[in-house]
Amino acid sequence: MAKKLPNRIDNFSSWYTQVVNQAELADYGPVKGTMVIKPYGFQLWENIKEKFDKMIKSTGHVNAYFPLFIPKSFLAKEAEHVEGFAKECAVVTHTRLKSDLNEGIVVDPESKLEEEIIVRPTSETIIWSMYKKWIQSYRDLPILINQWANVVRMEMRTRLFLRTTEFLWQEGHTAHATAEEAEEETINILNLYIKLLEQTLAVPVYTGIKSDSEKFAGAVRTYCVEAMMGDKRALQAGTSHNLGQNFAKAFDVKFQSKDNKEQYVWATSWGITTRLIGALILTHGDDKGLRIPPKIAPIQIVFIPIFKNDNQKKSISNYISPLIKKLKKNDIRYYEDWTNNSPGYKFNKWELKGVPIRLEIGPNDIKKNSFVLARRDTGEKIIVTKKDVFEDIVKLLKEIQNELFLQAKKFRNENTHDVLNYKDLKKIIKKGGFARCGWDGSDDTEIKIKLETKATIRCILLKQDVSDLKCVYSGKPALHKVLFAKAY
Amino acid sequence: MAKKLPNRIDNFSSWYTQVVNQAELADYGPVKGTMVIKPYGFQLWENIKEKFDKMIKSTGHVNAYFPLFIPKSFLAKEAEHVEGFAKECAVVTHTRLKSDLNEGIVVDPESKLEEEIIVRPTSETIIWSMYKKWIQSYRDLPILINQWANVVRMEMRTRLFLRTTEFLWQEGHTAHATAEEAEEETINILNLYIKLLEQTLAVPVYTGIKSDSEKFAGAVRTYCVEAMMGDKRALQAGTSHNLGQNFAKAFDVKFQSKDNKEQYVWATSWGITTRLIGALILTHGDDKGLRIPPKIAPIQIVFIPIFKNDNQKKSISNYISPLIKKLKKNDIRYYEDWTNNSPGYKFNKWELKGVPIRLEIGPNDIKKNSFVLARRDTGEKIIVTKKDVFEDIVKLLKEIQNELFLQAKKFRNENTHDVLNYKDLKKIIKKGGFARCGWDGSDDTEIKIKLETKATIRCILLKQDVSDLKCVYSGKPALHKVLFAKAY
Repeated sequence: MAKKLPNRIDNFSSWYTQVVNQAELADYGPVKGTMVIKPYGFQLWENIKEKFDKMIKSTGHVNAYFPLFIPKSFLAKEAEHVEGFAKECAVVTHTRLKSDLNEGIVVDPESKLEEEIIVRPTSETIIWSMYKKWIQSYRDLPILINQWANVVRMEMRTRLFLRTTEFLWQEGHTAHATAEEAEEETINILNLYIKLLEQTLAVPVYTGIKSDSEKFAGAVRTYCVEAMMGDKRALQAGTSHNLGQNFAKAFDVKFQSKDNKEQYVWATSWGITTRLIGALILTHGDDKGLRIPPKIAPIQIVFIPIFKNDNQKKSISNYISPLIKKLKKNDIRYYEDWTNNSPGYKFNKWELKGVPIRLEIGPNDIKKNSFVLARRDTGEKIIVTKKDVFEDIVKLLKEIQNELFLQAKKFRNENTHDVLNYKDLKKIIKKGGFARCGWDGSDDTEIKIKLETKATIRCILLKQDVSDLKCVYSGKPALHKVLFAKAY
Repeated sequence: MAKKLPNRIDNFSSWYTQVVNQAELADYGPVKGTMVIKPYGFQLWENIKEKFDKMIKSTGHVNAYFPLFIPKSFLAKEAEHVEGFAKECAVVTHTRLKSDLNEGIVVDPESKLEEEIIVRPTSETIIWSMYKKWIQSYRDLPILINQWANVVRMEMRTRLFLRTTEFLWQEGHTAHATAEEAEEETINILNLYIKLLEQTLAVPVYTGIKSDSEKFAGAVRTYCVEAMMGDKRALQAGTSHNLGQNFAKAFDVKFQSKDNKEQYVWATSWGITTRLIGALILTHGDDKGLRIPPKIAPIQIVFIPIFKNDNQKKSISNYISPLIKKLKKNDIRYYEDWTNNSPGYKFNKWELKGVPIRLEIGPNDIKKNSFVLARRDTGEKIIVTKKDVFEDIVKLLKEIQNELFLQAKKFRNENTHDVLNYKDLKKIIKKGGFARCGWDGSDDTEIKIKLETKATIRCILLKQDVSDLKCVYSGKPALHKVLFAKAY
């Protein structure tokens, strides 16, 4: 808690690492690239999870649980899918350890499995192998299943929350009788992601479709939400895939339609991950540390009593007690810091941890029948009366939620530029920011821009008029309007 | 849904399998012994989880998440621990797949890991490797962390919910400054397990200590809750371990005490698993299927409208609508079965699924301004007035919760026998039931009884006067009073 954070703008990457560490959000585990999510970080995930779980349940989805272990042969059934995941699979080959006189505990070679097992990198294959058993008729459709789970991808370069070997996520896997219904589901979920990101995490997003090179391995079409981080780089915050009939064909899942025809089932899948915690830090953080939107803050208001002796301590405790009761009753998450650390130390600590409101209370405030509230989002201090303090806190929490969103949106908009030629695109990408422009739709153009600028197409924007637009690179008529940016 | 269940008493094992299958609780996954928890079964787990999560949070515990992957060397650090888990470890050895012209997709031999990775069978080792970094002083203690996670044990003989290769659980891992505090935590958790089992799952339990041969690999002392299933066999429903300083020593976790001495940290760990769903089925089930205690029932009341035409349908819908609103408002979980299946079919279906209350409603009931409520626990039908129906439902849910517990307790007590000699013990074990008796405390006696009767010591009962008691087998003075039974 003692070290000063590096200046955020100039040392964005080490600032991030220090915030994750000092705010006690996460730590690396002993196996390369694995992550320990510490209690304060995990509460953020629990709060995000609770909000999104309610959203999907209220739209007719149910939770279930499918196995961690997938037979190797399953992964191979969908060609693009195995191509996409082959290079990052954790493979289980044995099932026993034994003692060895020379080497201690070793893997028992006699326990070698006949077929190797893959630790799930995603669950399309195992789930569609089960849907094969569950779906016969249109009466069995739709299936709207979600699971909250851990998945493993053996990444080379890892970063806490943003890219880890194991991460937590939700993965929805739905099955439908028509192409239209599957597309509708894909879009409905995209809209839930927008709502979660903007209204709960206070992170503004652009939405669109991924180019072929960036879409999910096995999808027909991938929709995404893309956010701008504090260093003006993009972060993919959630994806919703229309899988067409690809997995139904790979696992031979057909159904009898209402008019008695046999057809392959239509599918979607969609997910958000613990990466959202990274997005939160990178969007709202400042030189003092985290700034957490009230709706998901583990602690929404922290009490800092300022006292010199036990008498003062006691009178503060009495003074705040009716307010504490009211907060508790209304499920407002509070914490009282009664440690003997100095007020300055406590201010820094809870600012670093991003608590939206700090309530300061000392003998003078009691005399004046008031409280001091300090906003984490603006730094502003407000003196409120004892009578109104509860209502003022409730109001302030809403204001802070809104203010964080507006700040992030303003920053994002100021750093999104319409560019008409390649020179300007390069300038923007070099300086930092999103470049919005025409693209001729060719892989070739996409690759060349990526090689030269390290920027990728974050998404093809939806419903854009491109009739007068030219490709920023080739000068040919644009097929799409897209966003280019360097990304996490 | 069509098949008749086998008679429960005579075919207990196939009855269980059929109930799990027909009530749509779970299914086997493609990798041997893995389990797919279907939505109805998963809701049971979610409800159990929600209740217990509240209980541990209100006693000062916090959730966190530790990695699935453990370096092989870690497991070997505690001698008993590795001995206990070596024979059922899933071992990850490679990290890539590749295409092979002859064999299709194969494991890339060049991706072999330097140190093999173990998929967690339990997390003591990885957690204590982190506590080593987090604990320096008595100020860092206690640590009261829990995690909800999946674990893997490569079991040979598996059974849905009761014993599966992968299962879901919570595992608490706490760190303390004194032996007394660790023991207190172990007991406090034991008491929470008793409360959860008896008051929420309506499953009565015996509690006690495991004998050395049955205790957790690495524990000093294992407390447990043991329940009696409908076939009079025992099921271990939860365990709370006092780990002493074993893991602190294995991972060299010391702290500076208040009086400035360096000491090893004291530890506990404790867990309950998806096995509890098995316990639920085996305790409360009857010839018609599941009977789920209201507090955790995914559906607490099911509406069966009885209609012959759309007019009747509409008038039923109007008639029940105020009640539906009231149930919704009060978070009572209901379901309306408007399908065109026959009432008889629906009765069977929802009885099989164990819904506590069935509400039948047809044109005649509307005329009489009443409802018919059918209790799943007793089969009893009650006619209630429209005016009182909501209050009657609330009351009935409480009664059913209580009645299921009383039925199970009566059955358990009737089948628990005090035995004074070995002949009687054998008779009881053969007939089915728990034998309560003296034990001389020797491993030898325990093993001999196990070999001859297949019964094991389920627990050493707490606070028993053994001054006049003899060992049921050796005739020597008893060291403990214990429960013997065959177990799941």
